[in-house]
Amino acid sequence: MAAASPLPSINSALTRSSAKLSVAPPLSLSTASSASSSVGRPHLYPSSISSLSSGRIAALAPISARNPSRIPAVVDEVREMADSRVPTVVDVDLGSRSYPIYIGSGLLDEPDLLQRHVHGKSVLVVTNTTIAPLYLDKVIKALTYQNPKVTVESVILPDGEKYKNMETLMQVFDKAIECRMDRRCTFVALGGGVIGDMCGFAAASYLRGVNFIQIPTTLMAQVDSSVGGKTGVNHPLGKNMIGAFYQPQCVLVDTDTLNTLPERELASGIAEVVKYGLIRDAQFFEWQEKNMQSLLARDPSALAYAIKRSCENKAEVVSLDEKESGMRATLNLGHTFGHAIETAFGYGQWLHGEAVAAGTVMAVDMSHRLGWIDDTIVKRVFNILQQAKLPTQPPEMMTVEKFKSVMAVDKKVADGLLRLILLKGPLGCCVFTGEYDRKALDETLHAFCKN
Amino acid sequence: MAAASPLPSINSALTRSSAKLSVAPPLSLSTASSASSSVGRPHLYPSSISSLSSGRIAALAPISARNPSRIPAVVDEVREMADSRVPTVVDVDLGSRSYPIYIGSGLLDEPDLLQRHVHGKSVLVVTNTTIAPLYLDKVIKALTYQNPKVTVESVILPDGEKYKNMETLMQVFDKAIECRMDRRCTFVALGGGVIGDMCGFAAASYLRGVNFIQIPTTLMAQVDSSVGGKTGVNHPLGKNMIGAFYQPQCVLVDTDTLNTLPERELASGIAEVVKYGLIRDAQFFEWQEKNMQSLLARDPSALAYAIKRSCENKAEVVSLDEKESGMRATLNLGHTFGHAIETAFGYGQWLHGEAVAAGTVMAVDMSHRLGWIDDTIVKRVFNILQQAKLPTQPPEMMTVEKFKSVMAVDKKVADGLLRLILLKGPLGCCVFTGEYDRKALDETLHAFCKN
Repeated sequence: MAAASPLPSINSALTRSSAKLSVAPPLSLSTASSASSSVGRPHLYPSSISSLSSGRIAALAPISARNPSRIPAVVDEVREMADSRVPTVVDVDLGSRSYPIYIGSGLLDEPDLLQRHVHGKSVLVVTNTTIAPLYLDKVIKALTYQNPKVTVESVILPDGEKYKNMETLMQVFDKAIECRMDRRCTFVALGGGVIGDMCGFAAASYLRGVNFIQIPTTLMAQVDSSVGGKTGVNHPLGKNMIGAFYQPQCVLVDTDTLNTLPERELASGIAEVVKYGLIRDAQFFEWQEKNMQSLLARDPSALAYAIKRSCENKAEVVSLDEKESGMRATLNLGHTFGHAIETAFGYGQWLHGEAVAAGTVMAVDMSHRLGWIDDTIVKRVFNILQQAKLPTQPPEMMTVEKFKSVMAVDKKVADGLLRLILLKGPLGCCVFTGEYDRKALDETLHAFCKN
Repeated sequence: MAAASPLPSINSALTRSSAKLSVAPPLSLSTASSASSSVGRPHLYPSSISSLSSGRIAALAPISARNPSRIPAVVDEVREMADSRVPTVVDVDLGSRSYPIYIGSGLLDEPDLLQRHVHGKSVLVVTNTTIAPLYLDKVIKALTYQNPKVTVESVILPDGEKYKNMETLMQVFDKAIECRMDRRCTFVALGGGVIGDMCGFAAASYLRGVNFIQIPTTLMAQVDSSVGGKTGVNHPLGKNMIGAFYQPQCVLVDTDTLNTLPERELASGIAEVVKYGLIRDAQFFEWQEKNMQSLLARDPSALAYAIKRSCENKAEVVSLDEKESGMRATLNLGHTFGHAIETAFGYGQWLHGEAVAAGTVMAVDMSHRLGWIDDTIVKRVFNILQQAKLPTQPPEMMTVEKFKSVMAVDKKVADGLLRLILLKGPLGCCVFTGEYDRKALDETLHAFCKN
């Protein structure tokens, strides 16, 4: 393996990007909204005043409004990232639980980045049968390079969403206990979203909580699931029903791992990238429209930029609402419909991003039926997802009844009322609300299902 | 059921007891100790300076030193509790996660106490086959009395430590999902320590965390396991290996539930009461020596006093060290030996307190071999446990090897070093340390095992 750059040189070369953006007054679009949160009342994001768990009130404008000079900056930033191979750092600001996201090419060849976040003498790498042959040795080398005190064990789980359950999770506990891992050990998640979610929940629960590092190897995990501390497993009746909010020590995104990613997996990740544009970052959406071919062709600088900008958006939302009291729910655009597809169709039949893509089209359709967005947005969403070769409608087996029955146990149901993330206003604005005409939901379901 | 007293009258009648005790300078006994924590360095409790997770430094003297006038107060307090049937309140001070422990006779007939801590419209009572016929109806009545908006469901688990595992836990998730419980629901643990630990972990993990109330019905749960937020299940290779720190909304101790408690269970709880005396409250230990017959005869005022004083001790320790960075580990006196007995002998063969009693005798024996305590303490511990009809030695099947192999995966092992809670100095003082002569541990194991 390549020799590690010395620690100081990495540190000094870090390009630090703050996830905290300045707060600007609401746009004229904003509806007046009281600061107190209640079930069903719509919260308009990002352009409304929203009530957060901490009691803080945040007034957020869309990214473009906060930084009018951002369009030229996009081009500069992409160039800058293409020119350098040093990691970019996006900080997730959560007080004592804050952590960095390192993004860059070849980061798995930088032992210092990983080793600085390992505490204690034992590490358990949790990965799967697909990723282990590709990157497990590399990660073990990075963890042990010039570091003889550390013992690294690994557990290799079967690959796929259908194994994201309590039974598979027990294999992680079995291995940790057999290896006598103690409270000072570190769990490392090496893989996609399923591995990250399961390893994170295992780390949250093993001995009531141990250190934890995320090394996401899919675009989906790099832009979304590895950031923000949502961990868990599925239940036969619902996605991610059992889990914990548990933050990692760091997230290490080596963009080189995308070189081995199947095309379907790449597209699946793009569904979440598109989401950030739609819910809060119109300029990012416009950039995606112009650069979709580069993303699909795996242009390294385009991918690196998409990952960075996605992580910045996610980090900002998570910093403001870690436990999903309100704003964080907006990251679930298309996910209520999408989770219903994944659960009813059978976990793993469709990739998560594929189900989210179809779910996004449905959420956008419903927003339009409510009169909350104009039809140009509907068309642009349809086009960009189709360009990314993502599904734009649910699988044929999905009936209206199937949607309704799974959506009834969605985590965003409160006191019997299903709350949804819907677009409202110009591109980049959304609401999280239980106040919508039920007829529109019915019409959308009937429009997308044969019965 | 009895009509509820109106809320204001309960409030005004609450006898509030602060778990925060004033901080006094260390006794002359104290050893000088640096503020930084390291594996193996002994922390002397309660009379030493200890380093806590929060970075705070606490100097704590034993309870008797902090309040020299405490002995007469004990008598007064017992009288006061015997005279009144209003709840005593012990506060667990954990910032935004603070909560009250209500202690009193007939509290399950006070719907307001429970209802004020229920959020949302749905409640899931988790109980077992022994407790359900005795108290489930009473609890459901208390939850629904003049409160038609609330729906109460229940899940009745098999009774016993051997069912404290992931498989049984899944029954709680199954029921919650089948009943479409949402994030605003409340889980209520009605039972002993096993039910409290499992229901608490279920509440911590269901939808990544829902409200949670403890109604402990055994002395063990009332004086120890229901307070402090330690939740979890066992693994075949170790006790409580999988779980979470998750605090309840309140703990409601109706001392009347002890009337139906089997004698063995009562004695099991007394083992934890004795523990508080030994590790930090010499006067409480002396009170127990004088009042053991009253406790065994279930004298209501003696039991209520023992519960209150135990909860005060536990609340104070938990407030200072919620996540067990140091001081909280002292609550595990006798537990490392005890957990080894429970795991190797088979979960449920002995009650938890029975194993802890034998483990306490072993820890005290080892402390004496190290020259850390004089033999009068050894004799007093032996006598009080024998008076309570608790085991004073491990079961015959326990070998030195069995102890060693299970203790190697104890949660208090750090980087391969087993840390133990041992008594040191006068009655009421202990240390949590990895710095002890291994020979003493070996001698103790050989003294208590046939091979």
